[in-house]
Amino acid sequence: MINIKTGRVAMTHGSGGRATAELIRSIFAKHFSNEWLDQRHDGAVLPPITNPVAVSCDAHVVKPLFFPGGDIGRLAVAGTVNDVSVCGAKPLWLAASFILEEGLPFEVLDRVCASMAATAKEAGVAIVTGDTKVVDRGLADGLYISTAGIGEKITSRTIAGTEAKPGDVVIVTGTMGDHGTAILSEREGMSFGTTIESDAAPLNAVVAAVLEAAPDTHVLRDPTRGGLATTLNEIATESNTGILLDEALIPVKPEVKAACEFLGLDPLYVANEGKLIVICPEAQAEAALAAIRTSPYGRDAAVVGRVTEENAGFVEMTTLMGGRRGVDWLTGEQLPRIC
Amino acid sequence: MINIKTGRVAMTHGSGGRATAELIRSIFAKHFSNEWLDQRHDGAVLPPITNPVAVSCDAHVVKPLFFPGGDIGRLAVAGTVNDVSVCGAKPLWLAASFILEEGLPFEVLDRVCASMAATAKEAGVAIVTGDTKVVDRGLADGLYISTAGIGEKITSRTIAGTEAKPGDVVIVTGTMGDHGTAILSEREGMSFGTTIESDAAPLNAVVAAVLEAAPDTHVLRDPTRGGLATTLNEIATESNTGILLDEALIPVKPEVKAACEFLGLDPLYVANEGKLIVICPEAQAEAALAAIRTSPYGRDAAVVGRVTEENAGFVEMTTLMGGRRGVDWLTGEQLPRIC
Repeated sequence: MINIKTGRVAMTHGSGGRATAELIRSIFAKHFSNEWLDQRHDGAVLPPITNPVAVSCDAHVVKPLFFPGGDIGRLAVAGTVNDVSVCGAKPLWLAASFILEEGLPFEVLDRVCASMAATAKEAGVAIVTGDTKVVDRGLADGLYISTAGIGEKITSRTIAGTEAKPGDVVIVTGTMGDHGTAILSEREGMSFGTTIESDAAPLNAVVAAVLEAAPDTHVLRDPTRGGLATTLNEIATESNTGILLDEALIPVKPEVKAACEFLGLDPLYVANEGKLIVICPEAQAEAALAAIRTSPYGRDAAVVGRVTEENAGFVEMTTLMGGRRGVDWLTGEQLPRIC
Repeated sequence: MINIKTGRVAMTHGSGGRATAELIRSIFAKHFSNEWLDQRHDGAVLPPITNPVAVSCDAHVVKPLFFPGGDIGRLAVAGTVNDVSVCGAKPLWLAASFILEEGLPFEVLDRVCASMAATAKEAGVAIVTGDTKVVDRGLADGLYISTAGIGEKITSRTIAGTEAKPGDVVIVTGTMGDHGTAILSEREGMSFGTTIESDAAPLNAVVAAVLEAAPDTHVLRDPTRGGLATTLNEIATESNTGILLDEALIPVKPEVKAACEFLGLDPLYVANEGKLIVICPEAQAEAALAAIRTSPYGRDAAVVGRVTEENAGFVEMTTLMGGRRGVDWLTGEQLPRIC
C-alpha cells in the first residue's frame, strides 16, 4: 500500500499494473470519488446533453506548483471551468490527465488532488475520468496536469469574440495582473510589502449571473496568458471592431502595480486566472456589473472601455496623461510557465 | 512567421501572445482545421448529444516519439478513440493539449500533427479544441500530448468489466504484445529478424461492428499498459468471476515471442494499442468473430478463454504443457513510458 506521508512516485506507478491501481485507490479515488469516476472503466458513461455542448482543454505546467492564492490543482480545475463557461456554457464534467515525475512525494500529489477536489466542489463539477503517466526523474518539474472540460450551453446566443459590436461596453470583473505577478514574485522570492495572491478561481457562477442579468452579452473571455491586452486584440481581430480602453478605469492593485514596475512588466499583459472580460450592449452594462459584484470574485468589476467602429482590428487606450496610444498583442515571452 | 523546416519551439510560443497565435496558425490549424476548431474560441461549441455521453482521457509520454508502426500522434488519437469506444460508444470529438519542450524542431511537431490528423480522419473524429504550453529545455523529452475524447453510446447495454458472466467467451481481436515489444526493440536498438511494428490503431469501427453482430456483448476493453493479463484481472475483480485462458489459443507473432524471450518479458503483460478484448455470450461468439475479422485490424481474432463461476476474482491459464497456472496482475514496472 501507498504511504502518503513518506512515499514517492516510482516508474512502476505508471505501468498500469497493481501499483497504478494502488495509486488510483489511495489518492485519486479518495479525493475525486463520484458515481461516474467510480465506474472505474477506461472512460465514464454520463447522461445525455440536450443543449449544445461546449468543450475545452488545457495543459498546466505552472512553476512553482504551490503559490500564494493557489496551486497547480486549483489552477487546472478553475482554468478549464472558466474556458467552458466563457462559451456561454455551464461546465458539468472534467477529465484530468496527470504526468508525474519519478520521485514526486505522494504528499505533494495528495495536496494537489485535495485542492482540485475542493475547487471542483466549489464549481459544482465532477472529475469523471482520468489517466496517470510517470516520466523519469528530471523530466516534468514534479507534475503536469491536463484537464478537459465538458459543459452545456445556457444561452441560445453565440458568445464569441466575433460578436463584439460597436457601442458595446467592455467590463472586467476585477483587478488585472494578479495571477502572473503572484507567480513571478513567488518564483523570484520577492516581496512588495504585502503578499500578492493569485486570483485563480472558478467563474462559472459569475458567468451564469451575467447571462441572466445581461442576456444580450456578446463576448465572454478570461484574459489568461497574454493578459487583457492580448485577449482584447484577439477580440478586435475576430469581430473586426476597434476597442478603446480608458487607462484610468482599469483596476490594478497597488502592490501588483509596484511589483510590475519593479519587474519591468505591464499589468495589461500579465495573466489573470480569476477574471472575465464581458462585452455587452451599453443598455445592459449596469445590470451586468451589478450581477458580477454580487460574487466575491467580482467586487472590483468596472467598465474599462468600449467597442468602436473606427480603428477596426486594433486596441487603443486613453492614457492617464490624456493621450492615446495603441495597445498591441503581447510579443516576446514576458512570463514563461505561469499556468 | 514560423519556418517549419528550420525553426524550433521557443518559450515565447507558450506565452499566449503573437508567437502562440502563429504556432497555432502554422501547424495546428493547418492539420486539424474543421468547423469547430475554426471557431478559435477558448473552447468549442458543438451539437447536443442525445444519447448517453462517454468521456475518456489519456496523457501520452511515449519514448521514442516515432517508432515502427506509429508515433506519439497516432497513439494519442487512437488511444483515446479506443477508450471511448470500449464504453460501447461512438467517439465524436477530441481535445488535445500539447506540452512542448523548448528547442523542439517544428518539423517534429508538424509530423506528429500530420499523423494525428490522419488517424483522426481514419477514425472519423474531429479535433475540436486544444492548448499548447512550452517548458524549459531538458523537460518533456520533446513533447507530451494529452487527449480527451467525447462520444455517444451506441448501445443501451452497460458495457463494462462488471458485466462479465460465467459461460461467456473471451475473444481477442489479434496478436498480443506488438506495441510494447515494438517500442522496447526500437528503444534498445534491437532487431529480431524482422521489424516489429506497433499495432496502434483506432478501433471504433471494430467496436461498432461487434455491437451490431453481437448485441449482447458484456465487456469491451483495450488491453494497453499491463497487457491482456492485467486487464483480464481487472475484469475478473470487477465482475467477481473467474477467467480461464487457453495458452495455445492466444495469438502472438513469432517475432514478438522471440523478442519477449530475449528481453525477459511475457507477451501477456505487454501493451497493445490496436487490440480489443471482447467478452460475450457463447451464442454470439461466432458472429462477433466474423464481424471482427472483416476489419484489417481483426484478421487474427481468436477465442482465447472463457468466463467461469469458480475461481472468482482470478485469472488462470491452461498452459501449453497441459497444466494450469494462475495469471496475476502485472507487478513491477516491466515497460516504462510505452504510451
